Amino acid sequence: MINIAVAQSGGPTCAINASLAGVFVEAKKHKEIDKIYGSRNGIQGILNDNLVDLSQALRSDSDVELLKSTPSTALGSCRVKLPDFKQDATAYDKIIENFEKNNIKAFFYIGGNDSMDTVAKLSKYVVSKGKDIKIVGIPKTIDNDVMATDHTPGFGSAAKYIATSMQEIIRDSSVYYLDSVTVVEIMGRDAGWLTASSGLLKVNGETAPHLIYLPEVPFSVEQFIADVREVQKTHKSVIVAVSEGLKLENGRYVASGHISDAVDVFGHQYLAGLGKHLENIIKKEIGCKVRSIELNVLQRCASHLASKTDIDEAALIGQKALEAALGGTTGKMMVFERTSNSPYTIEIKTAEIDIVANNEKTFPKEWINESRNGITDEAIEYFLPLIQGEITPTMKNGIPVHISL
Amino acid sequence: MINIAVAQSGGPTCAINASLAGVFVEAKKHKEIDKIYGSRNGIQGILNDNLVDLSQALRSDSDVELLKSTPSTALGSCRVKLPDFKQDATAYDKIIENFEKNNIKAFFYIGGNDSMDTVAKLSKYVVSKGKDIKIVGIPKTIDNDVMATDHTPGFGSAAKYIATSMQEIIRDSSVYYLDSVTVVEIMGRDAGWLTASSGLLKVNGETAPHLIYLPEVPFSVEQFIADVREVQKTHKSVIVAVSEGLKLENGRYVASGHISDAVDVFGHQYLAGLGKHLENIIKKEIGCKVRSIELNVLQRCASHLASKTDIDEAALIGQKALEAALGGTTGKMMVFERTSNSPYTIEIKTAEIDIVANNEKTFPKEWINESRNGITDEAIEYFLPLIQGEITPTMKNGIPVHISL
Repeated sequence: MINIAVAQSGGPTCAINASLAGVFVEAKKHKEIDKIYGSRNGIQGILNDNLVDLSQALRSDSDVELLKSTPSTALGSCRVKLPDFKQDATAYDKIIENFEKNNIKAFFYIGGNDSMDTVAKLSKYVVSKGKDIKIVGIPKTIDNDVMATDHTPGFGSAAKYIATSMQEIIRDSSVYYLDSVTVVEIMGRDAGWLTASSGLLKVNGETAPHLIYLPEVPFSVEQFIADVREVQKTHKSVIVAVSEGLKLENGRYVASGHISDAVDVFGHQYLAGLGKHLENIIKKEIGCKVRSIELNVLQRCASHLASKTDIDEAALIGQKALEAALGGTTGKMMVFERTSNSPYTIEIKTAEIDIVANNEKTFPKEWINESRNGITDEAIEYFLPLIQGEITPTMKNGIPVHISL
Repeated sequence: MINIAVAQSGGPTCAINASLAGVFVEAKKHKEIDKIYGSRNGIQGILNDNLVDLSQALRSDSDVELLKSTPSTALGSCRVKLPDFKQDATAYDKIIENFEKNNIKAFFYIGGNDSMDTVAKLSKYVVSKGKDIKIVGIPKTIDNDVMATDHTPGFGSAAKYIATSMQEIIRDSSVYYLDSVTVVEIMGRDAGWLTASSGLLKVNGETAPHLIYLPEVPFSVEQFIADVREVQKTHKSVIVAVSEGLKLENGRYVASGHISDAVDVFGHQYLAGLGKHLENIIKKEIGCKVRSIELNVLQRCASHLASKTDIDEAALIGQKALEAALGGTTGKMMVFERTSNSPYTIEIKTAEIDIVANNEKTFPKEWINESRNGITDEAIEYFLPLIQGEITPTMKNGIPVHISL
């Protein structure tokens, strides 16, 4: 009999708990597995031996279903970056000590690019010490910026929320008969996947958002004003989607004056206020009614509108990760390979972790239109399958039910 | 045979189109009614004779259902305030001229407090001219601040969205093991109904939001900081709900430094940045991680999460308005009277328009807790029936379908 452990890391998504559920459900099928541990606050839970027995916390199928429709990380998260073990192996030795103490033979880390850095380092150290502990990465991030996989769990739900909310904002913005500009600020520091997904509305006949600006294209304030004026010739209510991470030709953030001076442990700057910045520019240069809306954290945690495809796939990739580890896989990340667009089919495989760790997959240049302010039909074809289907959350007193572990 | 007209006014809601559908569906049942006109952009559509034949636009039951689940005002809105007709009756005469030209014998105005000002003035003028044209007001506003009615169509859906989104924000805010404060800014200039509705989560066992500040209570920055520190003794992740319209003891807006200098035609100041203002205060005074989230326009237009009770009632009050006008009612607003809380039952009646016009119903002082930073169980009992049930929007390509008129 062996035990296994699962942890969650990085920013919340609607799907990260579904992957946890997938590992759990699959593990329960295997008689050789005794305890299924959840590690609280990512790798910190292993370091501090802060584990939860998931079989005690998830006592029924309906508990598992609740977990799948609860957003964010039910086990908590962390933003710990392990040092290079050649410089300092203290944390690594502690992790291995606690793995062995708890007879944990397989560890699953659900996270984004930064978390895969942990999987890469830890799996190498474990091998170097001759230990038989499998370390497998399961991708998640709303940003969809992870290499080697067609897409990431969490992205489809975020895209569905963004498209749906954008459509509601379009309705809201067009009620008065006057010239107006609405700037919608969407997450995405360096990759424009989320902002681009607002262009999905075109398939249902919406002409808006009229302008979409991605961080993959250097932003020009002059061109932006010219673009808005051009749209105003045919539309009274102009809708603009912008990625929070838009940068000028010189590489500086467009709203760099509004940047917080704080950085996180990975050295990322916190961005704030791009929408407000562009709002002020339009007010000054064009002078019409203008407002900015920040979709903020709801784009990553609005489980009530999750994509069924996304949640199902997130659970499945968790199941496959368990199978892979039992089959001997370590130091890899699970990935989706899209085998057909229509009908949509995927296969789940493994990828070398070094391709993934600390890398970013940006939005393809060839899916950006010639004017560099919109997306192509190929991008829409890519997005569409990922937002299909709805989950029906369990409701109590008119509010979705969440589970806590 | 007579014709009727319907118009929509004021800010968007999720339910205002359901009331339009209610008037339409009921009117179709009456053989004495020929044309059912929609007036574009509120009363402006009558002034400019800009009418749409709704029977041409809504050709099937499924069109009507789509209308009920489309947010915002399908006929467009306006913020026109009619002058005192004793000073200038030009607009009034034009309106009556166009009513008569189009054989419109009943006019329904779906709107909030300001729109009821139009109903009051116009109905009096029509009577003073001896014309037999019925003018009936149908309430709508997410703010729930309309006198004489138990609640307003649109509020229940906004409250459901706020409670659901707040719960998702709570999950999102509690993933890291560190002290943090999240300030959620909710609409409500002078009335705290919307912000108070975030307290609904208590019925499902949530302890957050821990602090709720309403504009009905003068705000003290010192007390706010003390309150946050008190909650931090027992909770690492502190969640605070604030109304955009919080005012200091001296009557000035808390974020008055952040107020836009623009005012709308009713003299209301635009508010912006209260959440950001409080974020900065916490950062300076307490120094922990802090962020602010503005729910923004989605709280009034997120039809994908509408309350079925709200949408059904909004349609019903539209139907009853048609019946009332045909029965001879004019210069009144339709209202809900709650006859029982459990089981929840309402009756639809009419109220004198003068009680309603230009008045506001604020959140009851007795439903605010002793510490003046939360709500009582009586408030929750009031809110609960209004958020019950979900509508299932028609989906196409994974996105809700909206109709345009």
